[in-house]
Amino acid sequence: MSKMRSEILSQGKVLAEAIPQQLHDAEAVRTVLGGQPIRFISLVARGTSDHAAIYGQYLLQYANGLPAGLATPSIHTLYNKQLHMEGGLVVGISQSGQGTDVIETIEQARAAGASTIAITNDLSSPLAEAAQLTIGCYAGPEESVAATKTFTTSLSALVCLSQALGAPEELLEGFQELPEKVDATLATLDEPLGQFAATLKDADKLISLGRGFQQPVAFETALKLKETCYVHAWGMSSADFLHGPIAIVEDDLPVLMFGASGPTSPMQVELLQRLQKIGANLAVFGADQNLLSNAKVAFPIGKDVAEPLLPLLTVLGGQLLSCHLAEVKGINPDKPRGLQKVTKTR
Amino acid sequence: MSKMRSEILSQGKVLAEAIPQQLHDAEAVRTVLGGQPIRFISLVARGTSDHAAIYGQYLLQYANGLPAGLATPSIHTLYNKQLHMEGGLVVGISQSGQGTDVIETIEQARAAGASTIAITNDLSSPLAEAAQLTIGCYAGPEESVAATKTFTTSLSALVCLSQALGAPEELLEGFQELPEKVDATLATLDEPLGQFAATLKDADKLISLGRGFQQPVAFETALKLKETCYVHAWGMSSADFLHGPIAIVEDDLPVLMFGASGPTSPMQVELLQRLQKIGANLAVFGADQNLLSNAKVAFPIGKDVAEPLLPLLTVLGGQLLSCHLAEVKGINPDKPRGLQKVTKTR
Repeated sequence: MSKMRSEILSQGKVLAEAIPQQLHDAEAVRTVLGGQPIRFISLVARGTSDHAAIYGQYLLQYANGLPAGLATPSIHTLYNKQLHMEGGLVVGISQSGQGTDVIETIEQARAAGASTIAITNDLSSPLAEAAQLTIGCYAGPEESVAATKTFTTSLSALVCLSQALGAPEELLEGFQELPEKVDATLATLDEPLGQFAATLKDADKLISLGRGFQQPVAFETALKLKETCYVHAWGMSSADFLHGPIAIVEDDLPVLMFGASGPTSPMQVELLQRLQKIGANLAVFGADQNLLSNAKVAFPIGKDVAEPLLPLLTVLGGQLLSCHLAEVKGINPDKPRGLQKVTKTR
Repeated sequence: MSKMRSEILSQGKVLAEAIPQQLHDAEAVRTVLGGQPIRFISLVARGTSDHAAIYGQYLLQYANGLPAGLATPSIHTLYNKQLHMEGGLVVGISQSGQGTDVIETIEQARAAGASTIAITNDLSSPLAEAAQLTIGCYAGPEESVAATKTFTTSLSALVCLSQALGAPEELLEGFQELPEKVDATLATLDEPLGQFAATLKDADKLISLGRGFQQPVAFETALKLKETCYVHAWGMSSADFLHGPIAIVEDDLPVLMFGASGPTSPMQVELLQRLQKIGANLAVFGADQNLLSNAKVAFPIGKDVAEPLLPLLTVLGGQLLSCHLAEVKGINPDKPRGLQKVTKTR
């Protein structure tokens, strides 16, 4: 079994052990930042962690009402500009805690008066040193180059952060039950995704779509497929896709769509129906019956899970698909060509 | 001649007429916002205008020292959340001024106490109505579905905004001379890009890279190639590309790189050399000799132009390439399949 596969399958257990420790870390965040007004949030990360950052952007806006955006590291690391950061909170995410651009952005923000938080799997890393406060991933060593369990534990760290910053409890109801739902989802999805992967053996191009909370899942799935299967798989917001890129869709192009029930569903259903007419090969992952019933292949995931928590389950579909497809294509997903576990960019 | 081609070639003249009017609009911005402290900036847009927004994000951080990020419209339009926007400035960009998500995001931000600015080619559009202040594109009617002159005039509008918010004059030196440089660049690039396009006749996949100010140019070029040539062309930050996606590069894959001299050059040179070893088909657009000399095909653009202004010239390369490649592939770039001039999403 590949390390990637065993790490994917371990995520229920990993989250069950991580969440109590993350809640403990988040208590310190509550104590230190609880009384201060936060005017805006900036998240900084790269690669898989950047998709966790996008999730954080949605979550902290949705549940905390705080304007949140993604930082542009080069402004700090290459152009050496100082921003006016008073009243800001900057969150740096890096599983290794060694991402140079993330560390420098945190250092500069802290020096400029922002509050700073690190989310990392290495509590003694330079990133944890640089930030005022840290929430750990507690995922244990991740041996596959393709990050999986450090992604889901970065998401759970962000949920703990959102709670610490005062998110209403009901919005994140069911958080503590996620580990068992992760196990159940993995058990249900594994075989059908193996079968679906076999149908994609010769695919060299693929589109991955999602809206709102499912957008970072679409991005992360595309990245995993690029890294482990060398497929030109690209993630997009379902809305942005309509503003031009839809022109590239031709007969039989595989399109994955990640979706939740709720306010993002109607526009995604409309898009699915349009893609169906063009003849795209549509696979849907998620909880929404209207979406699932319009797909060629449907992977029901996370019925009865609060929408902000659903990404922790739908991403398992993307992870398993990547792992199975790598096997089908005869690629070792643990050692993608040209990549190392820790990538340092400035 | 396609409308796209004639609109591309008109951009020197269009900018020469637009800039004085934009500077006039920006004076009103200076008067109204000049005295107020701005704590953060949020930009909202879709499609081509979203790439102008990314340019604005870099420019307003670089030249004004203000933290700036991109909004996530669904938070406002679908999830119906109110954010704490005191002290914020929200900039909405839409050439038609009819983008529903952009309008609603501006309306909600304004109601929540943010300052709001519209950048649009239609001064009587709903977006112009919704925002407190407007800077026009003054590009004249754009008839091709593929936006070109409304993109460059959105960038010049952002330069005027940056100046109105107090950017140091020397950072944007040469702004008034841009129109003639646009004309000169178009004249120099047209023929060599026609020849280069012929070599890409059968390309169905392509990567477009840039860092810092050139990142939105890489994104915009990829979008144009998708819309008008149906190529799976995808834009990425040169740094993000190293965190996984580089694994998809194989022999002969066309890779475009947009680059400036200055702080982003060394990491891009390193990346180019790595891509050269893998055997990618490398084309470089920009001002940096170190980058140009590592390319298979080099398009020198914008020597002696201040880095924040260079995107207005390098993007001409991407526009001309798309237009020529559409012709080579026998596609009418003015009417991409499945697209209309105005796309409304919420």
